[in-house]
Amino acid sequence: MRAEIIAIGTELLLGHIVNTNTSFLGQKLAGLGIDVYFHHTVGDNPERLTAAIKQALGRSDIVITTGGLGPTVDDITASVVSNIAKKAPIKRIRNIVGSAPGLIISFNHRAIRSSSCKTIICLPGPPREMEPMFTNDVVPFLKKRFGCTQLLKSRVIKLTGLAESKVDRRVKDLLALKPPVTVGIYAKLGEVDLKIMAKAADGRSAERSMRGIEKKIRSRLGKYIFGYDDDTLEGVVGSLLRKKKLTIAVTESCTGGLLASRLTNVSGSSKYFTMGLAAYSNEVKVNILCVDPAVLSAYGAVSATVARQMAVGIRLLAGTDIGIAITGIAGPTGATKTKPVGLVYIAIVVRNKLIVQEMRFKGNREEIKFQASQSALELVRKNIR
Amino acid sequence: MRAEIIAIGTELLLGHIVNTNTSFLGQKLAGLGIDVYFHHTVGDNPERLTAAIKQALGRSDIVITTGGLGPTVDDITASVVSNIAKKAPIKRIRNIVGSAPGLIISFNHRAIRSSSCKTIICLPGPPREMEPMFTNDVVPFLKKRFGCTQLLKSRVIKLTGLAESKVDRRVKDLLALKPPVTVGIYAKLGEVDLKIMAKAADGRSAERSMRGIEKKIRSRLGKYIFGYDDDTLEGVVGSLLRKKKLTIAVTESCTGGLLASRLTNVSGSSKYFTMGLAAYSNEVKVNILCVDPAVLSAYGAVSATVARQMAVGIRLLAGTDIGIAITGIAGPTGATKTKPVGLVYIAIVVRNKLIVQEMRFKGNREEIKFQASQSALELVRKNIR
Repeated sequence: MRAEIIAIGTELLLGHIVNTNTSFLGQKLAGLGIDVYFHHTVGDNPERLTAAIKQALGRSDIVITTGGLGPTVDDITASVVSNIAKKAPIKRIRNIVGSAPGLIISFNHRAIRSSSCKTIICLPGPPREMEPMFTNDVVPFLKKRFGCTQLLKSRVIKLTGLAESKVDRRVKDLLALKPPVTVGIYAKLGEVDLKIMAKAADGRSAERSMRGIEKKIRSRLGKYIFGYDDDTLEGVVGSLLRKKKLTIAVTESCTGGLLASRLTNVSGSSKYFTMGLAAYSNEVKVNILCVDPAVLSAYGAVSATVARQMAVGIRLLAGTDIGIAITGIAGPTGATKTKPVGLVYIAIVVRNKLIVQEMRFKGNREEIKFQASQSALELVRKNIR
Repeated sequence: MRAEIIAIGTELLLGHIVNTNTSFLGQKLAGLGIDVYFHHTVGDNPERLTAAIKQALGRSDIVITTGGLGPTVDDITASVVSNIAKKAPIKRIRNIVGSAPGLIISFNHRAIRSSSCKTIICLPGPPREMEPMFTNDVVPFLKKRFGCTQLLKSRVIKLTGLAESKVDRRVKDLLALKPPVTVGIYAKLGEVDLKIMAKAADGRSAERSMRGIEKKIRSRLGKYIFGYDDDTLEGVVGSLLRKKKLTIAVTESCTGGLLASRLTNVSGSSKYFTMGLAAYSNEVKVNILCVDPAVLSAYGAVSATVARQMAVGIRLLAGTDIGIAITGIAGPTGATKTKPVGLVYIAIVVRNKLIVQEMRFKGNREEIKFQASQSALELVRKNIR
């Protein structure tokens, strides 16, 4: 079974919007065992859209379009598709979020010599509308209509704390595997993902072949693995805190509230998170966190000693089990001869231990902030699991 | 002049990576007056890539590819392109970030009857490598090689605090404009953008025709406009605070540090931002912000009264000119009969004024957090400009 995806909209061609629909659909179709060899983007132009759909129908069984379903004159999808499908019956799919329904049309296209039936599925452009429509209505349709017997199962193993090149070196043999089981490596900011993909006739044998690979990855890289699939590091840390019945408070200088914000992205975080203090000025560090002003002027705000005192201070102030502190230089300004942009100290007080880590990150201001918050979360995870 | 963009990589088809390169290139090419009618994505498959490039060469003058330039066996771009371009000379473009150079090849393709010369430009996949390469080397090449006399200039006007449908209603006539000057509307979370695009033979006349439209938009929607083009709301608020020599401290319940993090995304924010307190527990609200425990139990943490006391408390604690507080229900849990998910109170103390706003947001937890932080920043902007 083959599908092709066509995104419709001049605003996509002009680059005003980043197209996330095709990656969503690519993932979901792969999971159903449907091969996708091409994605296309075309503008709101009937001739070019017609040509793109006809070409896709010539080499694929299913054509999925996104966008161009609204009520304005620019929305040409429905009329173009009706012209191609002639009098074939149109099934409308409900839109639980927006107003434009989706469309499913199955037909034999005269212009194509092959006798196999073709299906066009038209979905709305906004991801908020497209995603539930695909999951709730299109997936059941595809399963029923096409059987979708060959399954592609995948599992993402998420690591942090080890550079991509080092992860790569330890799993080189696995990255060279050929189908039906393959492994891919994907580097993100502060995270490396290994994605295992297995093709098999049924879910169980796909699971079985993945499990062997996963075991190998765990034995080689276990301590860097923080989660799987949709896990987030803050979510994993949150679950651990709940399980161990521990509370946490954080104080941040260079990350300015990002660590607290990530911890509180988790629903139910009020169970373990009590306070976060973005201590930007030295006065706040001294007056509220009780950092020693002499230490501050001797070592500077970006130092292991101040990080330690901040972590102790926030834990004392909040009365939590764990206190964590971040201080560093996010840049682009603020560097000195001995303290470059990207230098960050992270301290944690937990179970009568006081640990401080010196890190050196690369990237722009927001990238350094994110990596510092990632390392702080990982420091919590390592010390409470 | 016409270009077509081909993104290469099986990981893009499988949806493991969201493709941001095509939107970057789409914007830049539009700015050069080069028309782009199609984007495509193909996997690491030589036959399908060859077919895609040949088809694109048949209808466009320039084909730009991204990805597949690395050293591994999956990286097929260079060999596929050499096969198509035969013995045409290859110009290498330096890569200042990564290791794989880009390629530029101009030639007459025998399979195509048209006598006009075709150009293939191959760029690396990672945006960090592709973007500077395009800006530094490809843009000058395109300008020199193709003249690019007709310019497309654009300006984005950024609004917040008014729903897309209401913005739409006030500029309906402008949205209906036809080239050479057009206006587009794009809704984001907590923001609506109006993009003016003008095509003209030179930059100055494009600027002139844009200015008239911009004036109309300003006169109808002025108070909702917070910035232009690459402006961020936190950056605009930061500039205003610096200009007016005002300092600010924030306290957040439901946003959990996001407002502080956004304010400190701005380089130089230590000039005006002194502290942020994510006051998640009631103890922190009472013990550190001096919220009256009787008020807290009478009205609940999510109330206008508590928001007011928090704003006063943080300003007093930090000794700043401005104090701002957010308290609300980010969901998905925590709602009560009278207090639904999305209910947020935002209070500001500034210049002896104490203002509180009740807002009702829709969306998931992170979307509600973002919209609340957006409204808080807008409340600061409105009260200090």
